[in-house]
Amino acid sequence: MERVYNFSAGPAMLPVEVLKEAASEMLNYKNTGMSVMEMSHRSKDYEMILDEAENNLRKVMNIPDNYKVLFLQGGGSQQFAMVPMNLMKNKEADYIVTGVWAKKAFNEAKMYGKANLVASSEDQQYSYIPDCSNLNISKKADYVYICENNTIYGTKFWKLPDTKGKILVADQSSCFLSEPVDVSKYGLIFAGAQKNVGPAGVVIVIIRDDLISEEVYPATPTMLRYKTHSDAKSLFNTPPAYGIYICGKVFKWLLDNGGLQERKIKNEEKAKLLYDYLDNSKLFKPTVRKDSRSLMNVTFITESDELNEKFIKEAKLEGLINLKGHRLVGGMRASIYNAMPLEGVKALLAFMKKFEEENI
Amino acid sequence: MERVYNFSAGPAMLPVEVLKEAASEMLNYKNTGMSVMEMSHRSKDYEMILDEAENNLRKVMNIPDNYKVLFLQGGGSQQFAMVPMNLMKNKEADYIVTGVWAKKAFNEAKMYGKANLVASSEDQQYSYIPDCSNLNISKKADYVYICENNTIYGTKFWKLPDTKGKILVADQSSCFLSEPVDVSKYGLIFAGAQKNVGPAGVVIVIIRDDLISEEVYPATPTMLRYKTHSDAKSLFNTPPAYGIYICGKVFKWLLDNGGLQERKIKNEEKAKLLYDYLDNSKLFKPTVRKDSRSLMNVTFITESDELNEKFIKEAKLEGLINLKGHRLVGGMRASIYNAMPLEGVKALLAFMKKFEEENI
Repeated sequence: MERVYNFSAGPAMLPVEVLKEAASEMLNYKNTGMSVMEMSHRSKDYEMILDEAENNLRKVMNIPDNYKVLFLQGGGSQQFAMVPMNLMKNKEADYIVTGVWAKKAFNEAKMYGKANLVASSEDQQYSYIPDCSNLNISKKADYVYICENNTIYGTKFWKLPDTKGKILVADQSSCFLSEPVDVSKYGLIFAGAQKNVGPAGVVIVIIRDDLISEEVYPATPTMLRYKTHSDAKSLFNTPPAYGIYICGKVFKWLLDNGGLQERKIKNEEKAKLLYDYLDNSKLFKPTVRKDSRSLMNVTFITESDELNEKFIKEAKLEGLINLKGHRLVGGMRASIYNAMPLEGVKALLAFMKKFEEENI
Repeated sequence: MERVYNFSAGPAMLPVEVLKEAASEMLNYKNTGMSVMEMSHRSKDYEMILDEAENNLRKVMNIPDNYKVLFLQGGGSQQFAMVPMNLMKNKEADYIVTGVWAKKAFNEAKMYGKANLVASSEDQQYSYIPDCSNLNISKKADYVYICENNTIYGTKFWKLPDTKGKILVADQSSCFLSEPVDVSKYGLIFAGAQKNVGPAGVVIVIIRDDLISEEVYPATPTMLRYKTHSDAKSLFNTPPAYGIYICGKVFKWLLDNGGLQERKIKNEEKAKLLYDYLDNSKLFKPTVRKDSRSLMNVTFITESDELNEKFIKEAKLEGLINLKGHRLVGGMRASIYNAMPLEGVKALLAFMKKFEEENI
């Protein structure tokens, strides 16, 4: 079998150029006589890989100098604890809950202080982003928390909430690097690598340096303090070195291919193809309100579970893989991250049209 | 340049067969049309990889059924906190400090209760393992903690401490899978993958199931509870999936090559070659007391820093890489994990002899 079009929500497709390069360097990275997996993280060769990865990410995202870039472990789920443990100085924070991951973060935060629910879209199964232009932001809140793109439900903040001067913390896992962002609007951004960047096991944290301090929740483990990793430049202990190396290749690939401005154009083009079709289909229905639709995760259904299942099964036979929706919501989901080529979306679209004709 | 003999303390050499297989599967794993890096961790294909890795590790180590195997993130350093957060029910534990890593674990534990220092070899720069046959074990101690092989100093426990009935917790990072162990003697074993198993970013925890409970230190992050990962079979959130896949290949490689009994023979043979030479050399001196020497990390010095440096530099030109001792101790260190072939040790030995002749 050839390479498939993999619509997985993450881990997800990586640029084929990146994989080819990684394969060719597996036994001997740039004449070092070893794989990057075998390389001491304290060696000059590895430090260059790490520095280059950070510098290229800074270029790609235009990250201001007063922000630190950290490569950590534990995924978004560990950030759900690290954020309040490190940032809840007043023991209070405001959460906007627009999906499962935001809710998990909200519940985790309750262990470390008062977490206030200031907006939610749970009333309609998280199928939209609530109006966040005039929220009841708490006076004492240390930050306002969002999950910027909801992988499971396929929603996205098209406008950031008005935090009324409070720090904005964003889980960008599934929209990271999908379009330009103004980093200076955030206090902290984190993103698991396994959607748009690289292999699972790396989480990238971009944090404004004045938010990094020794003052943390009592008995916060050394490994869960941002200061530990910031002081050590992501080399406090052995980092997920091979994962970072792959992330670095993806940052380079982005730079070589027009950066985030070009990604935005490409991603909008891909998403528009699907949403335009879904809005006019007699068989398929999009599940998300028009103003809240994700560019990365396109969710849709047919009229019945049986037909959904048939669709997913037949699509798989055509090399269109992992179109099943998240187990919590059912239906279908096409995740179309940066590495999903336009041809993949066109192939999906052609198959959907054919399926509609046959099953209407 | 061909592949080098890489004596790095970790990340370290991996079996070349494993790397070749990984390279060949990089773009298309077993006809799935995707890389393991791109594979949903909830897919059947990935579940098979994870199950097979666990099952093969169970076979290799002969792990009893009442022990859970967990694949986690954060390395040994995160275990330094997870162990006391999860196991210090009486708020007390005994630590044997035989090196930097044990001391870090000891200091981290103090955040969560009373950590008692019951033995130490700090008086002689950790160059030996203290007698642990009759320690002053605390009545209330929940466990006794050791770092079984000290990567930096090159020591190893040849006999486990008498814990007087208390649970033994062992950081086996740098001796994991180097020889057979009786798992039933331990309550918990953990090991960072990057020495003897796979790429950095995976830490393996083997824990007796009665030690896994909901009763943990207050406000322990969800991700830092063994129960979280045990209940979810290492799939609570996205695991370091590619790293686990490589670990699985190494477990298979061990099974195909005589298991741990054969490793012990091979590792003893390699270490003996070096120690026998060091004990008789006029130029090089081993730094560790005879009864405490590691099979994995062989530490030695010459009479001067200049000569050490010259040795390290000239060795590198011969393709004998990363022989520099840890920055805290200086001198030289040859880490000869499972994947270091006998030929590599022989090449080092030949070079040492030549260097001795030229520099005595």
